[in-house]
Amino acid sequence: MCKALIIGAGGVGTVVAQKIAANPIFSDVMLASRTKAKCDAIAAAIGGDRVKTAQVDADNVADLCELFRAFKPDIVVNVALPYQDLTIMDACLECGVNYLDTANYEPKDEAHFEYSWQWAYQERFKEKGLTAILGCGFDPGVTAIFTAYAAKHHFDEIHYLDIVDCNAGNHGMAFATNFNPEINIREVTQKGRYYENGKWVVTEPHEIHKPLHYPEIGERESYVIYHEELESLVKNYPTIKRARFWMTFGQEYLTHLRVIQNIGMARIDPIIYNGVEIVPIQFLKAVLPDPKSLGANYHGQTSIGCRIRGIKDGKERTYYIYNNCDHEKAFQETGTQAVSFTTGVPAALGASMWAKGLWRGAGVFNVEEFDPDPFLAELGPQGLPWVEKFDVDLEV
Amino acid sequence: MCKALIIGAGGVGTVVAQKIAANPIFSDVMLASRTKAKCDAIAAAIGGDRVKTAQVDADNVADLCELFRAFKPDIVVNVALPYQDLTIMDACLECGVNYLDTANYEPKDEAHFEYSWQWAYQERFKEKGLTAILGCGFDPGVTAIFTAYAAKHHFDEIHYLDIVDCNAGNHGMAFATNFNPEINIREVTQKGRYYENGKWVVTEPHEIHKPLHYPEIGERESYVIYHEELESLVKNYPTIKRARFWMTFGQEYLTHLRVIQNIGMARIDPIIYNGVEIVPIQFLKAVLPDPKSLGANYHGQTSIGCRIRGIKDGKERTYYIYNNCDHEKAFQETGTQAVSFTTGVPAALGASMWAKGLWRGAGVFNVEEFDPDPFLAELGPQGLPWVEKFDVDLEV
Repeated sequence: MCKALIIGAGGVGTVVAQKIAANPIFSDVMLASRTKAKCDAIAAAIGGDRVKTAQVDADNVADLCELFRAFKPDIVVNVALPYQDLTIMDACLECGVNYLDTANYEPKDEAHFEYSWQWAYQERFKEKGLTAILGCGFDPGVTAIFTAYAAKHHFDEIHYLDIVDCNAGNHGMAFATNFNPEINIREVTQKGRYYENGKWVVTEPHEIHKPLHYPEIGERESYVIYHEELESLVKNYPTIKRARFWMTFGQEYLTHLRVIQNIGMARIDPIIYNGVEIVPIQFLKAVLPDPKSLGANYHGQTSIGCRIRGIKDGKERTYYIYNNCDHEKAFQETGTQAVSFTTGVPAALGASMWAKGLWRGAGVFNVEEFDPDPFLAELGPQGLPWVEKFDVDLEV
Repeated sequence: MCKALIIGAGGVGTVVAQKIAANPIFSDVMLASRTKAKCDAIAAAIGGDRVKTAQVDADNVADLCELFRAFKPDIVVNVALPYQDLTIMDACLECGVNYLDTANYEPKDEAHFEYSWQWAYQERFKEKGLTAILGCGFDPGVTAIFTAYAAKHHFDEIHYLDIVDCNAGNHGMAFATNFNPEINIREVTQKGRYYENGKWVVTEPHEIHKPLHYPEIGERESYVIYHEELESLVKNYPTIKRARFWMTFGQEYLTHLRVIQNIGMARIDPIIYNGVEIVPIQFLKAVLPDPKSLGANYHGQTSIGCRIRGIKDGKERTYYIYNNCDHEKAFQETGTQAVSFTTGVPAALGASMWAKGLWRGAGVFNVEEFDPDPFLAELGPQGLPWVEKFDVDLEV
């Protein structure tokens, strides 16, 4: 008997609510967001009275606590905005609720992806005997669990880790972002960063790139960008000599991003417009297509995985573990495209791991610190089958 | 003795105020705009108490009339926004004031450049015995006066008219517009349109283009766009078989415009943002560099002129009349770049033509309906020297 509260009613929240509602380990399910009508629509699509809904301001600890005290959740699944991670963690500590999220905290006024803010909650969660599970989407999330699985079963030492993220989907629009445009653009336009020989190497945005081959997709130009799971993985696997994250972008997408920056619409500091402070990138978000609207015409696949080189029994080996997800299939099942699907399914599954008592502990954890086996055993049946390849050309 | 009221304190207003203040035919000069502080700064730079200033809401006829009755101008030089042409004309009719502008009226909610709205004032200006001079900047303005000069002195029949507008200046910024970004983007992103054999031919935006050579500049890719003087010129010169307007754009500029449209920031219909109606292109204007700020680092020249083919004394002839204007020289003289300079100088000179009694009449006039000779005699001394070439390869 476990009560789950989901916060956030975007594309990811839609998937999480469906998956948690379908899982009998959760006795009670509630979906809350700033706009209750969005939650009501998602709950109505699931049907019956399985999913309760509520309005909550996730920026406001007192408001969160009022809801927590009323619903008494055992675990909160946070798929709201990354800005809101800390207020939700604060409310969890105050009300004795366990915590899971899919993206690390990021302050509103600077593009800055780091775990430090959330790792600073370690002692407080430990003292309260509560579990906080950080970054349990696909990337971060499954990519770190893939790495943990590789380390557990196939390597004595991981030396080179390249996480590769390809979205070969086509939504037919001139430009759109696959999740919250504000977060998406902030992430993609930042400087590149990767880990090598104990140090972080910073590059210009999109400075390092090469074509990589993706299963069932083919060759796609791939760019080294910073991604948050690198930070915890190099800490948890100290044998790693180099860790990088590659993401595919089309030339048109990059052109659009470049122009958006040139014209000042990627700015995260407010300008004064008719006497009111408005942050340009937040205004742009309101003008761009809602990522949820992309699903219906989205074709093609995503392919995300880990390419690993290291030592097993004294011999070098290469290993590639990945999942391909089809946008159309994801939309048929959940009404959202693959980018929301691949994030929401692992979040719901992580909450289930906690509910079953398989992923527990007092403190703040990244997902690679738990046993990957029960999670990966269920990941395929939940809709994200994965494939292993040994001794292949990693290209990286 | 003539009292001139200038409305609009942007880059063009700065130039008009300087030129009118320097012209002794104007006994009294006032500069008014929505933001009085902008007028005060321009007046202070001119020095003395030559230019009075005032605040006025040019959208509001009653507000305009209050100012007109207090200052009692003989002529209003309208260099405010094109949206405001009709309210200013209404106030002129109500208060018995003559009128001059540099850009045709355009409704706020559609990109639509046509004289019909202003031509509809013909009878009312006639009845009141007032003169309204439309489109007296460079283009429209000098381009039509060049055409009138060609018709008066060099052609019995004009058959082919190609107005060519090259801005070979470089302001060193990734993207900026040379005048009000809202008007600029609306103008440039509309469909192409030109006149041929009695009909208007509509093209996709930027569909027709070719490299043309500009004096002292060289070859620049030039695009057929619609420009408002075509409408009056084909009416006033019915022998014209084809009339087109060409403008140069760099590839980067077009890429930026394409993206601005793709992401929805060129939209002129409002979206709801945090409960408030905001028009995306107006918000973009607030984020982009102020066109007035471009002057200081602007290098290179503009070259605008008319390429004409027609008949004189039974023989075909070709004729090219143009002005080149240097951004740096314009900035040194007036503190604004060439695009504002080339618009402001003709507006001030047109007002002077009216003040001297050379351009008069009861009704609404396009500039080619007046005698071009006295205007062109003064245009060079005012800072815009022009060049004629006969029997040259027009390229068009």
